[in-house]
Amino acid sequence: MAPSEEAIGISGPDPTAPAPARRPGGRSARVRERVLAAVRAQLVECGYDELTVDAVAARAGVHRTTVYRRWRDVGGLLADVLDAAGDDEWRPRDTGDLAGDLTALNQEVHAALTERPSVTTALIAASFRSAQAADALRRFWEDRYARCETVVRRAVRRGEVPAGTDARALLVAATAPLYHRLVLLRIPPDPRLPGRAARAAAVAAAAGAFTEPPAETGTGSP
Amino acid sequence: MAPSEEAIGISGPDPTAPAPARRPGGRSARVRERVLAAVRAQLVECGYDELTVDAVAARAGVHRTTVYRRWRDVGGLLADVLDAAGDDEWRPRDTGDLAGDLTALNQEVHAALTERPSVTTALIAASFRSAQAADALRRFWEDRYARCETVVRRAVRRGEVPAGTDARALLVAATAPLYHRLVLLRIPPDPRLPGRAARAAAVAAAAGAFTEPPAETGTGSP
Repeated sequence: MAPSEEAIGISGPDPTAPAPARRPGGRSARVRERVLAAVRAQLVECGYDELTVDAVAARAGVHRTTVYRRWRDVGGLLADVLDAAGDDEWRPRDTGDLAGDLTALNQEVHAALTERPSVTTALIAASFRSAQAADALRRFWEDRYARCETVVRRAVRRGEVPAGTDARALLVAATAPLYHRLVLLRIPPDPRLPGRAARAAAVAAAAGAFTEPPAETGTGSP
Repeated sequence: MAPSEEAIGISGPDPTAPAPARRPGGRSARVRERVLAAVRAQLVECGYDELTVDAVAARAGVHRTTVYRRWRDVGGLLADVLDAAGDDEWRPRDTGDLAGDLTALNQEVHAALTERPSVTTALIAASFRSAQAADALRRFWEDRYARCETVVRRAVRRGEVPAGTDARALLVAATAPLYHRLVLLRIPPDPRLPGRAARAAAVAAAAGAFTEPPAETGTGSP
């Protein structure tokens, strides 16, 4: 999966793809690439329990002290995998309308969650083990959702949804059913799900469901 | 949290509540109650890594061979916690309209995910460690969502949503943003979220977003 297809899923460069002719950053960047590829491979093949600095160093063909010095521990390695995944030029597609943009986004999320092995799913599982991974995952998603807000701004400009639509609430509503079904409920994938969830969120947004509701009465805020 | 308030969250009887005057099932049922209470307490206080049959037996004041014989291992204990949580008379509230019913449901889910400590969140985390827990969690949620389908049938009868509305898709759309934000994105709770997510799903359902869409053309199903 190329970086431009990563969306809110997390992946690395295709390990079977030929290496680019020139890599920026020199030796240090090459070591980082090899180590992070080893973390992803070790995680999806062996799981978190067998993800150790020594196993990663051996897999990457890098001296273990190099890994310890630069990443410190498994949490540091996982956090850097996520930081590296977010360090790209990914932007949501512009299909011309809101339901189409959200469907395109959901198709990318769906692909990341259903590919086998799924680095995304493995990193989500790891976030329940490592506070550093959980923090890095939160940062990654925050950045991805922030990039997607342009989808909502375009829809407002086209008059598809009301001004004042809460972009983040709409984006979470569109994508959440995929994560809920595939990661938590663990229901077998349904290829119609990305489009359905996207259209439902777009319809609700058009009806004003994601604009700030009037303050509730009688609750007496403190 | 009393069993009748468990919704799609998972909890046990309030450990500080007085014991009921009579318990059905006799000694075996009392042992089960004590052991499952010990599993929940051990899980939320110490986490999965310190959840062992021996620790549970000691905490419950039950001989370890009793626990091994009946539950076998940690997976068996977690599965029984989930099976016991589903063994109740819980039904979704009937507030008179769809948005109200979904909001009431979401308020229960929100409470289960934000209480501290949260047995629900701890069991979700455990489902990434134990295949038996993952299976039991899938069964538990399947049963909870099935019970909630009455909410959608009532809305169809009242004419709030079209006949042919996919109840499960609507219920997942209504509840998924809570799980996504609180369990995966780990965003601080927002008391407005249960109502917003419920209203957005209800609006989309009223507009027909959860009825079977026409078959897509040009995809050539196999």
